[in-house]
Amino acid sequence: MSHYAKPLARLVEELVKLPGIGPKTAQRLAFHIVGSSQESARSLAAAIVDVKEKIGYCSQCFNLTDVDPCWVCGDDSRDKTIICVVEEPTDIIALERTKEFKGHYHVLHGAISPLEGVGPGDLRIKELLLRLNEDIQEIIVATDPDVEGEATAMYLARLIKPLGYKVTRMAHGMPVGGDLEYVDEVTLSKALEWRREL
Amino acid sequence: MSHYAKPLARLVEELVKLPGIGPKTAQRLAFHIVGSSQESARSLAAAIVDVKEKIGYCSQCFNLTDVDPCWVCGDDSRDKTIICVVEEPTDIIALERTKEFKGHYHVLHGAISPLEGVGPGDLRIKELLLRLNEDIQEIIVATDPDVEGEATAMYLARLIKPLGYKVTRMAHGMPVGGDLEYVDEVTLSKALEWRREL
Repeated sequence: MSHYAKPLARLVEELVKLPGIGPKTAQRLAFHIVGSSQESARSLAAAIVDVKEKIGYCSQCFNLTDVDPCWVCGDDSRDKTIICVVEEPTDIIALERTKEFKGHYHVLHGAISPLEGVGPGDLRIKELLLRLNEDIQEIIVATDPDVEGEATAMYLARLIKPLGYKVTRMAHGMPVGGDLEYVDEVTLSKALEWRREL
Repeated sequence: MSHYAKPLARLVEELVKLPGIGPKTAQRLAFHIVGSSQESARSLAAAIVDVKEKIGYCSQCFNLTDVDPCWVCGDDSRDKTIICVVEEPTDIIALERTKEFKGHYHVLHGAISPLEGVGPGDLRIKELLLRLNEDIQEIIVATDPDVEGEATAMYLARLIKPLGYKVTRMAHGMPVGGDLEYVDEVTLSKALEWRREL
């Protein structure tokens, strides 16, 4: 990388630390920033510093937020009787995009993974238990449909159901608009298993 | 994007302005930055501001540099009799990687493109002419092998050859290690046309 001017080399180095940014993309981004206006470079830099300074966890649901409680927990129009448990804050954004769910969330910040040394104690499970009260009617476990997510769902179900709460899991099935031919066999068999009468 | 906390939304907005960064990648990067240390976020932000403040054009070859002349123009061990003309500073990095070329460069900052309203006057062609002197033995026109690059090469050849300089163009041909079957027909016919006796 000695072919770069030093400040450029440093920016490329910083950019390759970001996930999914390889040396080529980092170079393209760095040259774009060099070619952009001083103002827009400052604006990007300020946004990066700002996000670290102003964003923290919601003390209730552990979503990322710049106010506490976050905009979901602080919204009185949302249904307080239902909590949707997710692995990451990004999952909330995906679920909000559906405009279907109007309840509350709880972010575990991960999933149980013995291989990676992540146990129940490393997740925000205690904090979830503390939120349970007689108003709550359902806990939807929306962890990822992979091995770790399923294990976490099983763990939560065994922990919470005995306390008298209804614990549900999102359905497995065919993607909408998908072509059966291209759906993987595991999803296909799940779609068959979860079939409903019409 | 209203599902983000404000500073997060702002960072995502800033990131999608970068080339090749869509909303999903921007979100992934933003969440990564939120999750990284304060120190690494500051370091990235500083590198961005720095690159704008410290990087400018070399007054001789118009490469991006933090010193003037740049590290190529200032290197007395390089061959001053040969100038390789490229479209962008990134092309220099690619050529330097080959470790084959030890001459000087000249960056045009674009190529002639009537469709995009880029004429010869918009490129650093005048500055190239000013660099020509009796020591120079060859000018390699290494503009891109596309319509604009070829047009620029033709234009430069017609301009510079009458002044008595040798003007050359990099060869077209087969990629090394490539499979003939997958080479596009234009490259194939060029490779045939430029064939050499063994």
